[in-house]
Amino acid sequence: MISKLINGIKEKEAPIVVGLDPMLSYIPEAILKKAFDEYGETPEGAAQAVLTFNKGLVDAVCDLVPAVKPQIAMYEQFGIPGLAAFRETVAYCKQNGLVVIGDVKRGDIGSTSAAYATAHLGRITIGSKTYVPFDEDFATVNPYLGSDGVKPFLEVCKSEDRGIFVLVKTSNPSSGEFQDRLVDGRPLYELVAEKVEEWGRECVEGDYTNVGAVVGATYPEMGAALRKLMPRTYILVPGYGAQGGRGKDLKGFFNEDGLGAIVNSSRGIIAAWKKDTYAGKDYQSAARAAVLDMKEDLKEAMG
Amino acid sequence: MISKLINGIKEKEAPIVVGLDPMLSYIPEAILKKAFDEYGETPEGAAQAVLTFNKGLVDAVCDLVPAVKPQIAMYEQFGIPGLAAFRETVAYCKQNGLVVIGDVKRGDIGSTSAAYATAHLGRITIGSKTYVPFDEDFATVNPYLGSDGVKPFLEVCKSEDRGIFVLVKTSNPSSGEFQDRLVDGRPLYELVAEKVEEWGRECVEGDYTNVGAVVGATYPEMGAALRKLMPRTYILVPGYGAQGGRGKDLKGFFNEDGLGAIVNSSRGIIAAWKKDTYAGKDYQSAARAAVLDMKEDLKEAMG
Repeated sequence: MISKLINGIKEKEAPIVVGLDPMLSYIPEAILKKAFDEYGETPEGAAQAVLTFNKGLVDAVCDLVPAVKPQIAMYEQFGIPGLAAFRETVAYCKQNGLVVIGDVKRGDIGSTSAAYATAHLGRITIGSKTYVPFDEDFATVNPYLGSDGVKPFLEVCKSEDRGIFVLVKTSNPSSGEFQDRLVDGRPLYELVAEKVEEWGRECVEGDYTNVGAVVGATYPEMGAALRKLMPRTYILVPGYGAQGGRGKDLKGFFNEDGLGAIVNSSRGIIAAWKKDTYAGKDYQSAARAAVLDMKEDLKEAMG
Repeated sequence: MISKLINGIKEKEAPIVVGLDPMLSYIPEAILKKAFDEYGETPEGAAQAVLTFNKGLVDAVCDLVPAVKPQIAMYEQFGIPGLAAFRETVAYCKQNGLVVIGDVKRGDIGSTSAAYATAHLGRITIGSKTYVPFDEDFATVNPYLGSDGVKPFLEVCKSEDRGIFVLVKTSNPSSGEFQDRLVDGRPLYELVAEKVEEWGRECVEGDYTNVGAVVGATYPEMGAALRKLMPRTYILVPGYGAQGGRGKDLKGFFNEDGLGAIVNSSRGIIAAWKKDTYAGKDYQSAARAAVLDMKEDLKEAMG
C-alpha cells in the first residue's frame, strides 16, 4: 500500500494529504440548510451535511493530491449517522482514486486490537460470508500498549496490503509530557521510532514499509532526527498551517530523494473559504487554491 | 459519577465489572441462528446476535454487579450495525441500573479529543438541538498525547458528571516495552499515574475523583505501588481470570476501606458456559455462577 501512496505523491507532485476533519462551522450555510431541511437539525442532518461537504472537497482536489485523512472523531461525535458518513466518505474518496488514511488512533491488546484492525483495514467473517467494515487503506495507531497492540495490525497489513502510521511524536504542545521523557538519555519517542522501524521490517515494500510514523510539523528538529533514525519509514506530518508548521521547516522530514514524508493540512484547506486570503471564492475553489499554495510552499522548502 | 459506581459496589458487595466483549464464538448457536434467520449472515445479523446475547447477560447479572464494560472494538468490527448494537447495549445496561464504562481507549488532541469526549460522554449541538451520541458513564482514555488529549475529557466529565479511566499500566505482556521504561529512575507508568492524580483534582467526588486509572491484574506489585501513588484514584483492573490474574493477587489494588478498585472479567463470565466448570448450564446461569465465584474469590483475597 505504501507504494500506491508514493506513486500518487510522485504523479501529482504533491506530498500532501487533505485532512477531512469537518466541523459544522466549516460547512457553507447552503449545504447545512439543505441537509437540515431534508433531515431536520438531527445527527442524520449533520451527517448528510458533512458528507455533501466532503464530496465537494474531494471533487475539488482529487486531481491535485494523492491522499485524504478523515479524522474519525469528527464523525463519531454525531453517533451512528456520523460514522455512516465516515464510511461513505472513505468509499467516495477511494472511488476518486485517493488513498485513505483513517485517522482513528486506535490501539488495544490481542484480540481487541485485532478487532480494530479488522474494523478499519480488514474483513470480517460472519458465518459463511465476509464483509468489509470501514475499508481504509491506512489507519493511525497508538503505541502506548506496546507490540501486543501493534502486531494484530501488522497481520492485517500483510494479508490485505494495507498500512499503518504509528504515533511517534505528536504535534500538540503537551506531546512532550510523556513522549519527550528521557530513557537512558534518549527521548521515549526515539524508542517508539526504533520499534516502528522494527515492525516495518515485516511489511517492506520497495524502499519503504507499510508501517509509517506520525511526527508533528511543529517539532522540525525532532522530525529531522527521526528521519535519520527511521530510514525506511514514511512519515505522516500533521500540524502544518493552522497548528503553526510551515513548509520551510519541513525539509528535515524528507529524504534526499524528496520522498519519505507526507504533510497533512485540514482546516487550512477544508475551511480555506473562511480565510481572508481566499475571500470571494466558494469553498471548493478556496480549497483548491489552498492546496496549490501548499504545494508551492512545500516545493520551495524542499527545493 | 464515581460516587454512583462506589455506591453500586457497596450495595452489591461486588467490586466487579463485567466486560461485554462479545465474540461470535461466545454466542450460543440458538441465538446466532435466530439472528441469521432474520437478517442473514450479515453485519446486521451479527449485531442482532450480539445485542440479544448482551441483553441476556445483563438480565442474568444486573442484580449482582454494579457495572459493565463494553469493549467498542468488538462492535466496531461489525461496522455501522455493530456500533448501533454498542449504543443499544449501553442504553439497555443503563436502563437496568448498571454503570457503563465504555472501553474505547480514545485519545487525540484539542478539538479532536473534545469530539471523542462528546461522542462517548457528552452531548452534541446541532443547530438549535442537542443529542447524546453514545452516552457511556465512563470512557477509557489513552494518555500518550499528554494533557492536551485528556483535558477535553475532563471538561465533559465536569459538565456532565461523567468519568474516565486513563491507561496507566496495561495488562498485556508487552505493556512494559514503553510503560516500564525508566525516566529519572522511575517507570513511565508512574509519571502517568502522577498526572492522573493531578487531572483528578479537577473532578473530586468524596474520597475519590472522576479520573480513574487502568492497571492490569497481571502486575500485582505494580498495582500495589500505584495504589499508594494515586490515593484518590479509582483503579479499573483488567486481566483477571483469562489473562492470568487471580483474586489473591489483587489485595494491593484496594485501599484499606476495601474500596479503590473494580476488577473486570470478560471472557470468564460471558463465555463461562463454554468452560468445563459450568458444564450443563445455559449461558445466563453460567455467567451468574461465574460472577458469584468471582465475588467469592475477591472476598477471600480482600478478607
